[in-house]
Amino acid sequence: MRCFSKAQIVASLDPEVALRGLEQGFIAFSAGKVQVPPIQGFSFPGANGDCCVKSAYMEGSATFTVKISAGFYDNPGKGLPSNDGLMLVLSAQTGQPLALLHDEGWLTGMRTALAGRIAARLLAPPQVTAIGILGTGMQARMQLEQLGAITDCRQVMVWGRQDSGLATYRAFARTLGYEVHTTQDAAEVAGAANLIVCTTPSRLPLLRSEWVRPGTHITAVGADGPGKQELDPALVARAARIVVDSVTQCSQYGEVAHALRSGQIDTTQLIELGTLLASGAPGREHPDQVTLADLTGVAVQDAQISSCALAALTA
Amino acid sequence: MRCFSKAQIVASLDPEVALRGLEQGFIAFSAGKVQVPPIQGFSFPGANGDCCVKSAYMEGSATFTVKISAGFYDNPGKGLPSNDGLMLVLSAQTGQPLALLHDEGWLTGMRTALAGRIAARLLAPPQVTAIGILGTGMQARMQLEQLGAITDCRQVMVWGRQDSGLATYRAFARTLGYEVHTTQDAAEVAGAANLIVCTTPSRLPLLRSEWVRPGTHITAVGADGPGKQELDPALVARAARIVVDSVTQCSQYGEVAHALRSGQIDTTQLIELGTLLASGAPGREHPDQVTLADLTGVAVQDAQISSCALAALTA
Repeated sequence: MRCFSKAQIVASLDPEVALRGLEQGFIAFSAGKVQVPPIQGFSFPGANGDCCVKSAYMEGSATFTVKISAGFYDNPGKGLPSNDGLMLVLSAQTGQPLALLHDEGWLTGMRTALAGRIAARLLAPPQVTAIGILGTGMQARMQLEQLGAITDCRQVMVWGRQDSGLATYRAFARTLGYEVHTTQDAAEVAGAANLIVCTTPSRLPLLRSEWVRPGTHITAVGADGPGKQELDPALVARAARIVVDSVTQCSQYGEVAHALRSGQIDTTQLIELGTLLASGAPGREHPDQVTLADLTGVAVQDAQISSCALAALTA
Repeated sequence: MRCFSKAQIVASLDPEVALRGLEQGFIAFSAGKVQVPPIQGFSFPGANGDCCVKSAYMEGSATFTVKISAGFYDNPGKGLPSNDGLMLVLSAQTGQPLALLHDEGWLTGMRTALAGRIAARLLAPPQVTAIGILGTGMQARMQLEQLGAITDCRQVMVWGRQDSGLATYRAFARTLGYEVHTTQDAAEVAGAANLIVCTTPSRLPLLRSEWVRPGTHITAVGADGPGKQELDPALVARAARIVVDSVTQCSQYGEVAHALRSGQIDTTQLIELGTLLASGAPGREHPDQVTLADLTGVAVQDAQISSCALAALTA
């Protein structure tokens, strides 16, 4: 068995290959061809930490993956990052462990950003006036990097709570060739942008329906656990197309969970990303539709991106 | 993060230290101080394989452990062992992965054998006439190695289905200083031995109640999943003391599950090994009692033995 570092993984992974792997993964997941055992969770109240183990096997794949993600929120005081992570890739033919990818959470970030790109390719309006980003962290950067592949627009409006985060993001986005506007008022993002990605761990809605212009597409990736919420439920209810990565999971704790609970939508309005990809139908049906992609993250993404990473690392 | 091979782990682990760690683990488990998330299971019907992920954190411990065990039963035809396994040890203070122990299942074997030794120390009759072993595989060898520490008896009667397995076991047991008798009739084992360990993956009872002499202790470790059974339920019902590693788990698929289902015993007759250890009470109350230890294996054993192994490897 071999171990690979984050640096090796970042240097090897081809996002275009990973993108195709993720699309296959979403299709297989929605067709019921992925084994996804229950998530294992630990809490470490004394250390202000938690950890989860997510595993998946896409039937027919040569490998399967066990992912361990840890968040220990006092780590920065010890000079360590809050988040760590690794993926173990095992052979689905012999059970042998093939590789440990100590990606420190990078592959999770990448598979989330690539899912956002897939959703935006299917749902973004034909003319993107500006890209809007809520949040200034790693996922906010990765999403912008990936969106460059699906639109020629090089205007970005980024929302954050702190000047320092906005300044860092501005410098980053400029290196990608963007003209950058920063704001601490989310209404400004909705006024300028019609392709918006929400990447924050917010527990209160940040984006109100009345701010959002017709024809806007919104991808929300921040709500990945109970209690998290970035969107006004009225905005979810207003969307003509609501694409989710997993109906079951999003109904429990995605953005759509809040609108379902209040009865503003029902589950028949949800379509899984894998079902949409398999159908070959256009995601967006009309230029003036508001569309939403609610991405909570599914373990088949980990299985597929780790498989791609291992193939690249051992090529 | 460091990776260690089976050879390194075998060379470093001190069974006496691990034994104390396991006792602490059983006590914590029975006191409700171990986080044990649900087991993750995969099946690979095309490759005749399965895999499970078991994780545990003993509260207060410096580490927690994720174990992956794979069984791929066509592997021998490919020149590979049927079983593989590894344990990942992570920090409970920072979430960082500390080590990957690629023990190939050896630590699982060792913690199972050490649990058998703990049970035998508490429950074996004062005069052991002979040790009886059902099965001739790795666990059958490890149990005998550990029992040498709790009795001076150096007579062993081993049962197996095949001459070749019995011959190999005979040679092994002689190297430990045993006088060895082999048989293909389990009644002979019960006639000679009053400390019996059952280590087979049988799905039909092997040991009948009427063969077993008063004062015999039996440890059964083979039943670790639904459908497995080594003992006649009447023998389980006859036991004056029934010690289990986990009431919940043994009631589902241990030896006691069969006797519970047929109404021959009820759960009030079960006592957990950790509860017995914590009480300081003697396991065996009378020389003529038949006693039983039903050990299905609990994840806290993995957490404790991997913690011990890592401490020894990095000392």
